Amino acid sequence: MHDLISIKDLNRELIEELFLLADKYNKNRHAGGFEDKVVAGAFFEPSTRTALSFETAAKMLGAEYIGFRSWEGTSLAKGENLADTIRMLDNYADCIVMRHPNDGAARFAAEIAEKPVVNAGDGKNEHPTQSVQDLYTIRNSFGKIDGLTYGFVGDLHYARAVNSLLLALNMFKPKKVYFISPESLTVRGEVLRTLNYKYEALADPNKVIDEIDVMYITRIQKERFTDPYEYKKVEASYRVDLALAEKMKSSAIIMHPLPRINETDRGIDRTKHAKYFAQASFGVPVRMAVLSKILGGKR
Amino acid sequence: MHDLISIKDLNRELIEELFLLADKYNKNRHAGGFEDKVVAGAFFEPSTRTALSFETAAKMLGAEYIGFRSWEGTSLAKGENLADTIRMLDNYADCIVMRHPNDGAARFAAEIAEKPVVNAGDGKNEHPTQSVQDLYTIRNSFGKIDGLTYGFVGDLHYARAVNSLLLALNMFKPKKVYFISPESLTVRGEVLRTLNYKYEALADPNKVIDEIDVMYITRIQKERFTDPYEYKKVEASYRVDLALAEKMKSSAIIMHPLPRINETDRGIDRTKHAKYFAQASFGVPVRMAVLSKILGGKR
Amino acid sequence: MHDLISIKDLNRELIEELFLLADKYNKNRHAGGFEDKVVAGAFFEPSTRTALSFETAAKMLGAEYIGFRSWEGTSLAKGENLADTIRMLDNYADCIVMRHPNDGAARFAAEIAEKPVVNAGDGKNEHPTQSVQDLYTIRNSFGKIDGLTYGFVGDLHYARAVNSLLLALNMFKPKKVYFISPESLTVRGEVLRTLNYKYEALADPNKVIDEIDVMYITRIQKERFTDPYEYKKVEASYRVDLALAEKMKSSAIIMHPLPRINETDRGIDRTKHAKYFAQASFGVPVRMAVLSKILGGKR
Repeated sequence: MHDLISIKDLNRELIEELFLLADKYNKNRHAGGFEDKVVAGAFFEPSTRTALSFETAAKMLGAEYIGFRSWEGTSLAKGENLADTIRMLDNYADCIVMRHPNDGAARFAAEIAEKPVVNAGDGKNEHPTQSVQDLYTIRNSFGKIDGLTYGFVGDLHYARAVNSLLLALNMFKPKKVYFISPESLTVRGEVLRTLNYKYEALADPNKVIDEIDVMYITRIQKERFTDPYEYKKVEASYRVDLALAEKMKSSAIIMHPLPRINETDRGIDRTKHAKYFAQASFGVPVRMAVLSKILGGKR
Repeated sequence: MHDLISIKDLNRELIEELFLLADKYNKNRHAGGFEDKVVAGAFFEPSTRTALSFETAAKMLGAEYIGFRSWEGTSLAKGENLADTIRMLDNYADCIVMRHPNDGAARFAAEIAEKPVVNAGDGKNEHPTQSVQDLYTIRNSFGKIDGLTYGFVGDLHYARAVNSLLLALNMFKPKKVYFISPESLTVRGEVLRTLNYKYEALADPNKVIDEIDVMYITRIQKERFTDPYEYKKVEASYRVDLALAEKMKSSAIIMHPLPRINETDRGIDRTKHAKYFAQASFGVPVRMAVLSKILGGKR
Repeated sequence: MHDLISIKDLNRELIEELFLLADKYNKNRHAGGFEDKVVAGAFFEPSTRTALSFETAAKMLGAEYIGFRSWEGTSLAKGENLADTIRMLDNYADCIVMRHPNDGAARFAAEIAEKPVVNAGDGKNEHPTQSVQDLYTIRNSFGKIDGLTYGFVGDLHYARAVNSLLLALNMFKPKKVYFISPESLTVRGEVLRTLNYKYEALADPNKVIDEIDVMYITRIQKERFTDPYEYKKVEASYRVDLALAEKMKSSAIIMHPLPRINETDRGIDRTKHAKYFAQASFGVPVRMAVLSKILGGKR
């Protein structure tokens, strides 16, 4: 593995190898071993959660961490082209972690850089390390990823975390996947066409709630709507409340990549279904696994 | 000691223990010893002085430091609730240092977090590590904190550093404390009611200037005034100039938590009374003392 | 060497010593040796390239790095005077690296600070570490700096990197130096007067292009123009394109301190003349050389 741009750069075997590394790092965060490495975080879009988890992961591996967490104040704001900025980081660091508002920006960076690039989110396209974290959470909850029924709720059109996870499930054998969203926010055609498992799109979660093992909720992004009334309508209808959660199987889990605004009832936090805090807690060990694989790997 | 939210979380014995630690770290900053710890700085309000002194302190202790220094670009700006942000940091770090514009925010964070929280300033409420730094400066100047006459000048209403220090003096035996400020900026009633020492509020420092051992000046914050004319009037009248300083006892000291704008005559910098630069220089060793106590302490 | 404010703080012998240090660090970046030092980066003007190269350099030397990369959110934004901010950093760190929009700010800081100050760019005045990096690039290309013909193209009036390099060439023996720019952007009189080598100002690069060994291009800064039409005219006429590059001697090199906007044809990147990426790649080892000299040096 040189770069990690798409979840498709991984395969099932590599993902399982990352799980074992994450198990190790979850037990012992202060692992060290990469004292002679520099990781650069290039966040052209504001990020706290992902940026800090990569930074913490790099430091726990003993590496140095440099970078920026917003486009403002960078040379790009002065009009520099992305390629030159990437060349700079390529020179300073052994690995570039990059978030960018444009689809495909990470792939572009990987073509410029000699050092490996890790995609930390590019537009509405992909967020592969989030998917490893998500899969790791499912595996830790059920002991498996195969054979489960998944329900994705909310914005399935623009959410890169959903996109990458749907592509990741191609490497496993989900029993069935439900897409629960308003029609305007359903999975994009170009993604749907690549899925090798059974899926069904529907608007009302109540119909299938008792089948679902893994419910994955995402934030509906206000900025996608031109009509605030449309947003309000959609936001309200895809809020997951306690009443809905109580209809789930007792073993079912609720996931969310966070940050969340108003998509879930806070009361769910205290139910056994809530796995989003556990999921979040895997951010550092999973990214340690990814970085250690990338930094230690041969081209 | 688990959290440090209010100066009232400390007692005289603990404060004196922190002094001895600060003595040690002041002699040897590159102390190390906490290489397996991560400190997170969560500054939801802009900060340079306090943020950098905590960061330097953490690094001098050998710990890793992560965090942010402004609310912009954080998940909170996207609408995330504070509790979820705290949970994230709780997961990444061994200790959370937090500044927030709202009174009580640090206490709230401490209730959410399993890891210790250190209040680096919450609204107009408290700034306990500044008080330890202030007390340390007084102790280093006079060899004691008891038995001295204190004069607080400027904004005594909104300044959290003043607030915490007034509460701290409850643990010592000040001879007398003068509150020198316009009436609109005097100490808040809820603070006054808890003070166990003799105090007196007055408007004109000239009347008591020759009694004062420790004069503590704070910035009058322009943004508290709706009428700019009122601000100008107050600002001018609580400026400490050389003429006033020359009326002080020869052993008297002038303190200021900094940053200062126009509250003091720059000429005072070169007098023997000026202790604000010495006071500032204790920022790192005192915060090393606090962090080492917090990170090394049992719950 | 205590401070490095102007390139004139160096002499030829010191510059050659820095070259040897840079050679060493270029071979082995993870050099360490300064584990007990703290470097503070005080960037009062946005910077990515210079700020990150200093940060990386400090970390590669094993030092801790603290600081800020923009004026916003600092105490200065609250109205603190620069002297107090410098005193704070002087207390926290062993060396202050400073960029500031005002000419002379670094010299002022050096007068306040006890610890050494390195000028990372002050207004339109100087940027001495960039010049060491530039000279190092020339020396690595030609094995010498003396006896070459130089052509400076673009904004020679406001560009501090040009200014420092012109002053640096006083320590060497350039054959001739051409200033190729619109009249309004030519070298300032106070700089011209100090130059001890042969120079000539002209508007059209075509006339001398075949004489030039080192062509140094700088960005024409839009914000210097009040009339956008004037800017457009100037920008277009000082763009270096492939046709011009093809008229150069085969050994000639093209340099640029970066970031670049539209001053060069991207096609030049793939010619043997393009040295700006190599030049950029020396940013970290050259700054390691400077910092190691400063941090290790006696006052």
